[in-house]
Amino acid sequence: MKAAPDKLLLAVDLAGTFVFGLEGAVAGVRGNLDALGLMVVAFATALGGGLVRDLLIGSVPPNAIRDVRYGLCAFAGAAVVFFLHPFVQQVPEPLLVLIDAAGLSLFAIAGARKALDYNIPPFSAVLMGGITGVGGGTIRDLFLAQVPAVLRTDIYAVAALLGAALMVIGVRLKLSPAAMALVGGLACFTLRMVSYHLHWNLPRLANN
Amino acid sequence: MKAAPDKLLLAVDLAGTFVFGLEGAVAGVRGNLDALGLMVVAFATALGGGLVRDLLIGSVPPNAIRDVRYGLCAFAGAAVVFFLHPFVQQVPEPLLVLIDAAGLSLFAIAGARKALDYNIPPFSAVLMGGITGVGGGTIRDLFLAQVPAVLRTDIYAVAALLGAALMVIGVRLKLSPAAMALVGGLACFTLRMVSYHLHWNLPRLANN
Amino acid sequence: MKAAPDKLLLAVDLAGTFVFGLEGAVAGVRGNLDALGLMVVAFATALGGGLVRDLLIGSVPPNAIRDVRYGLCAFAGAAVVFFLHPFVQQVPEPLLVLIDAAGLSLFAIAGARKALDYNIPPFSAVLMGGITGVGGGTIRDLFLAQVPAVLRTDIYAVAALLGAALMVIGVRLKLSPAAMALVGGLACFTLRMVSYHLHWNLPRLANN
Repeated sequence: MKAAPDKLLLAVDLAGTFVFGLEGAVAGVRGNLDALGLMVVAFATALGGGLVRDLLIGSVPPNAIRDVRYGLCAFAGAAVVFFLHPFVQQVPEPLLVLIDAAGLSLFAIAGARKALDYNIPPFSAVLMGGITGVGGGTIRDLFLAQVPAVLRTDIYAVAALLGAALMVIGVRLKLSPAAMALVGGLACFTLRMVSYHLHWNLPRLANN
Repeated sequence: MKAAPDKLLLAVDLAGTFVFGLEGAVAGVRGNLDALGLMVVAFATALGGGLVRDLLIGSVPPNAIRDVRYGLCAFAGAAVVFFLHPFVQQVPEPLLVLIDAAGLSLFAIAGARKALDYNIPPFSAVLMGGITGVGGGTIRDLFLAQVPAVLRTDIYAVAALLGAALMVIGVRLKLSPAAMALVGGLACFTLRMVSYHLHWNLPRLANN
Repeated sequence: MKAAPDKLLLAVDLAGTFVFGLEGAVAGVRGNLDALGLMVVAFATALGGGLVRDLLIGSVPPNAIRDVRYGLCAFAGAAVVFFLHPFVQQVPEPLLVLIDAAGLSLFAIAGARKALDYNIPPFSAVLMGGITGVGGGTIRDLFLAQVPAVLRTDIYAVAALLGAALMVIGVRLKLSPAAMALVGGLACFTLRMVSYHLHWNLPRLANN
């Protein structure tokens, strides 16, 4: 028997997959992909980060292959974009960014936690949290033959790494995992939202 | 002792690897790659889809690494392009498309079948068939810094998914695997050839 | 207890990781990446080849995830580029090429050796040596949305394959692994340096 919190977590995880899938498909429309292309980038955006994490930590077959509900949620995101595109276009960007930040937080925390469960060293577990959060968007950008946005702009991956780091530190200090998931997730979400609204960017060197 | 049908299957599989390798090398020539680059894209085109499938279903080391005959066939395709390029250029496109469609059908069916053998859920097994069929060409396009053609044009991946789906449905219904391989393969091949000659494309949204 | 040679090997391996990380970050600056992007491409350049090799031969989690010293060395390379960029720019190119050739030799030999340890067939073990040597740079180029340089120019991957092949042949002939590592590494290093200074390239077909 699964406890209620587990069911809540699964529901949130599937919702995040749906939202990331939707975002991936929106990028696919801009990249002039056909209906199947939308499905592929939706799947890759929503599940690519977790796929790479699972391959790296040795959880094979990856969750996204083993549990078909994840793929279906990603495809549902693509279907919404395909059939309801005029409506999707009217969603205000700040709302999309907010939902995306929630998904990012969730994925980063869950990714770091899973890596620790597989006995990955703490430092690498933080990286796994970051990959879970931003890996899918990176693969999406590669499919669209673009330099991944996460490498160039915004405080995005840093927020994921911050959340994952707090989670990992908490587990190492034997604090309550649930509490640290909340703290880490909120930290990731807050940093992402603040940096978005204040247009924070990471420093870079002049390219000369 | 291996039965004669197994030997036939292996021969067909190696022939498909050769043809896909040849196609990959032709794309490499257009991408202005050197001799080694041709070998790399031939290998990636012919064996990349199966490699990714094997990593995802947990068949490690992947078949393409374990059995060196596959790599040799892919490299042979590259060598033919390199040393006999004027001749390769004279092969009429419809013939290449026909041979390619045969390879696609074979890879999709074999990929779905192998996924089922590794206890992958049916829905994911269909995806694995699709990845086996089109994953190599996708990697080839990424190497050439292009948006993968399969995401944008033609009924190609859909044909692979159709063939894989028929295979998976047949196995679930406990029909003869050999018969379903034939039915699925023929469906994939037919859909691909018909859509090629009638210039069918998947629908897409206007990019505005 | 680890013997002194092992410690030497580890030190050389970590030094190679640092240098490849530094080179990756330099490419990242040219690609206009931010500070985090530099860290990502440094990690990918230094450790991506070994990561792919480990996934393919079934050594999971990959060494770069299991042993955090590797990631730290790659990030140190990125940090040096970020904080000491004017100094890094003054390093003469021939020196960088020399250090790079040493790292390439080391990675190719170590990659082939590890593949043999995992019972990969000799032919594939040579390919694994090549992937270990040039895979990271290939991933770096993909992140920067460029056709991987290794597919187009220079005697680079061929040097890695030569070194790996000598290593594998030596092990098959039951020669001393240490001696063959030296022979293979020197051959790789020499071919790379000579071809660099004499501007050797692989042949290619006219693209018409």
